[in-house]
Amino acid sequence: MTANLNASYQQAYQRLEERWKKISHLDHATSMLDWDEATMMPNGSAGQRAEALAGLELMKHELVCAPEAQQDLKASLDHRDKLTDWQSSNLLLMQRIIERSSLLPPRLVEETSRVVSASQMAWREHRKNNDFKNMAPHLEKVFQLKKEAAQILSQKKGRSPYECLMDIYEANLSEAKVNQLFESLRSFLPEFLKKVLKTQNEIKTTKALGPFAVEKQQKIGRMIAEKIGFDFQRGRLDISHHPFCGGTPQDVRITTRYSPENFLSSLFGVLHETGHAKYEQNLPLSWNPQPVGRALGMMIHESQSLITEMQISKGAAFLKFLLPLLKSEFETAADSPEAWSLENFIRSCSWVKPDFIRVDADEVTYPLHIVLRYEIERDIINGSLRVDEIPSVWDEKMQKYLGVDTRQNYESGCLQDIHWPAGLIGYFPCYTLGALTAAQFFKALKAKHPQVDQELSQGEFKTINSWLKENVYLKASLYPAEDLIVQVTGRPLDTSAFFNHLEERYLQTR
Amino acid sequence: MTANLNASYQQAYQRLEERWKKISHLDHATSMLDWDEATMMPNGSAGQRAEALAGLELMKHELVCAPEAQQDLKASLDHRDKLTDWQSSNLLLMQRIIERSSLLPPRLVEETSRVVSASQMAWREHRKNNDFKNMAPHLEKVFQLKKEAAQILSQKKGRSPYECLMDIYEANLSEAKVNQLFESLRSFLPEFLKKVLKTQNEIKTTKALGPFAVEKQQKIGRMIAEKIGFDFQRGRLDISHHPFCGGTPQDVRITTRYSPENFLSSLFGVLHETGHAKYEQNLPLSWNPQPVGRALGMMIHESQSLITEMQISKGAAFLKFLLPLLKSEFETAADSPEAWSLENFIRSCSWVKPDFIRVDADEVTYPLHIVLRYEIERDIINGSLRVDEIPSVWDEKMQKYLGVDTRQNYESGCLQDIHWPAGLIGYFPCYTLGALTAAQFFKALKAKHPQVDQELSQGEFKTINSWLKENVYLKASLYPAEDLIVQVTGRPLDTSAFFNHLEERYLQTR
Repeated sequence: MTANLNASYQQAYQRLEERWKKISHLDHATSMLDWDEATMMPNGSAGQRAEALAGLELMKHELVCAPEAQQDLKASLDHRDKLTDWQSSNLLLMQRIIERSSLLPPRLVEETSRVVSASQMAWREHRKNNDFKNMAPHLEKVFQLKKEAAQILSQKKGRSPYECLMDIYEANLSEAKVNQLFESLRSFLPEFLKKVLKTQNEIKTTKALGPFAVEKQQKIGRMIAEKIGFDFQRGRLDISHHPFCGGTPQDVRITTRYSPENFLSSLFGVLHETGHAKYEQNLPLSWNPQPVGRALGMMIHESQSLITEMQISKGAAFLKFLLPLLKSEFETAADSPEAWSLENFIRSCSWVKPDFIRVDADEVTYPLHIVLRYEIERDIINGSLRVDEIPSVWDEKMQKYLGVDTRQNYESGCLQDIHWPAGLIGYFPCYTLGALTAAQFFKALKAKHPQVDQELSQGEFKTINSWLKENVYLKASLYPAEDLIVQVTGRPLDTSAFFNHLEERYLQTR
Repeated sequence: MTANLNASYQQAYQRLEERWKKISHLDHATSMLDWDEATMMPNGSAGQRAEALAGLELMKHELVCAPEAQQDLKASLDHRDKLTDWQSSNLLLMQRIIERSSLLPPRLVEETSRVVSASQMAWREHRKNNDFKNMAPHLEKVFQLKKEAAQILSQKKGRSPYECLMDIYEANLSEAKVNQLFESLRSFLPEFLKKVLKTQNEIKTTKALGPFAVEKQQKIGRMIAEKIGFDFQRGRLDISHHPFCGGTPQDVRITTRYSPENFLSSLFGVLHETGHAKYEQNLPLSWNPQPVGRALGMMIHESQSLITEMQISKGAAFLKFLLPLLKSEFETAADSPEAWSLENFIRSCSWVKPDFIRVDADEVTYPLHIVLRYEIERDIINGSLRVDEIPSVWDEKMQKYLGVDTRQNYESGCLQDIHWPAGLIGYFPCYTLGALTAAQFFKALKAKHPQVDQELSQGEFKTINSWLKENVYLKASLYPAEDLIVQVTGRPLDTSAFFNHLEERYLQTR
């Protein structure tokens, strides 16, 4: 920006940055309103909130698609080689957003926002009441609108409709690459799962009796999140139906849900969201409102939640640090001493059990939950499956992949996740791709810093946090995800680090 | 809207309504972000929130001041006689907003929003630390920007700068009218206050000992608010430093603050905000996003909080209903039985004591708090007083009007209110004008429905609520405030009903 400040391409580029500052104010509003809707808003206000969010989304859309934006884009692109690296990446990301948004008619954007708000509010009720019948019309509308968007994008871009939806959450993911990785998982996991369950049959875990007061769980969750690096000066931890990480980089709002019978679920939920939050809170401040200053796609975002939740927090080293803290809060006189032994605790935290709920699933069965959702949503978008067929296909695949009987149980079955009501179609694959990335990242980190386990057992996060900052957080969206992975780990994403990790944790160290 | 739908003036008018729908989405966002800032937001996010709010205010400003808005306004005004009454009033209100906003440069609007956000965050800290010195530069900036705005408006409208600021909160208030009413108060109150204090010396009140658990106060506040008519399906009650009523008509967010030593303060705080909230929640839904569908100015808004808090809730009839509920929650074995007698309770609720805090002041001394603030802010805007002189003038006037020594006590002195940090200059007079209006309204209501006291002693609000709905809520901004007062009470606003009320409550019935 030093030389040639007044050149017309530079002015055009600066106008685009100004435009994105304006967009970021609307983003700030919609992020906070989304958080408020999930945590604070009274039910009766849902209609008006949906209208307001739709209106604000439309304003963003108008800013992105304005003819002036297109002109400034063209003028800047012609001289992209004269921009800095960050500006140049920023410009390419703007191009991506402007081109995609310009393809979608404003009517579709506004309607999608409104339908998706109403559908999420309906989901809260119908999920609780195990009522698929009344939820179906909402899902029908959501899928219909996403299908319409997917088809418009597909025609222009020459990619499959479903691929165009995945592209929203992680740029450049191809169905071929996802299929290849998922095929590797499919051929490895079932056999592996059998082995794990067989070994597990030979050991046993002893439960602490509880109940585990919600206030204590809140206190511990907050304390551990802070210890790991969550900055409560620029964020909050609250309660919502479905745990999430929202807000903005300077005001990150994470949520969890509590059950007095089980403290591990809320705790690891908090750790998961803390991983997301740290990524957001450590993005480079000066690039904040610009596309290049934001987090990469959801695959990388999930790699950050999972490196925290799975790679770090469920490892023996960190659990050794964690146990005394939990014991001092939750141990009761009625507990058997074995319930609070380190070995028993480690076993409990890595217990494998094919079950209903994705967010509570262990690392071994989790990818199968994703494969199931991937197949269903892909087939609906591609037109080979109908929304009213979801429950029967769900039951069938849950039986096939995990041996779990979900019949008539929509609440813990196909209504358990907010993604479809929220219109997040094409998002699910990112979870498992994120798990693979997390394993590959953590392997690279440990190769560079073999002492991290020692540090984790002391509750020490300095090495990990500065590695993450240098390799992921501060790079924001400067490079595409596939390039970042190669830079950080020396190779493209594959399943080998993940499989090694599973074998070590679930077979060798038990 | 039935005939001539396609006439060009009709199309122009419809475009203005569409424009205001868009503005209302931004209003929704800023209202909720304001609420979030006061109740939920972590301190470290203040800077970014200020930027976002400034950006959103600027977008509103651009929508209001767009050349298309001016053209549509002109085209519609030429045919105003062909519009319905509601459309016609709506158009005049739009004209008022467009003309005022067009006078203010966007730079000033954006900067004011940013400065005011920062100043409110600073106020939270400095007020707590009794630190006027570090708060002064913030107040300096706020007053400077408001002065600039006032001078621009004054030059164009030929009204005094301070009058132009009052106009923002209540249309058409003249300094002359305010001076006349305040002069009437000044000549009545000091003498009256002496009489009240003399009578009060002859009686005594007995205190319940407490402590009064915050959880119980919350429960009761919620219960009473609901009983009076607050709809929790479309609103919330939370905690903030300074009690307020915010949000939107379909999602009203009220707040209070709790002290374990005193339950009356939080309870009457909730009742006050519930009065505001009922007005918002009962505005005509179909006109909601339009200027004519919104609440009238702050004088009428305050009349609604004060008719609830002062006229209704502190009257003997309602207190008779309230006492058993409070007693069952808060009575302790150590309390003297006299502490929970009805006579003692009524006396406690209408106890008069010249003191520091405006929001905790009784009806008799309250107007003097307002006169003090009115004189200070008016003089700063008119240039005859400097911000750094506020503490000394504050001390002097508090001594003169109320005999209270506020020296060195900024926290309970000139830093007690959020109004100046929040840029709400010209707002204070509305409180006392609202008190006068509330008395005049309640007198009219009782003349029509003499049985309301009987109903209140049963906790019955039907008559009152339907009277308020018919006479105030559903009229929204259809008529100017001065016309509404004449329609409802048969005469322009004066001090007679307020004085009668004071004499009856504080001298005759004791």
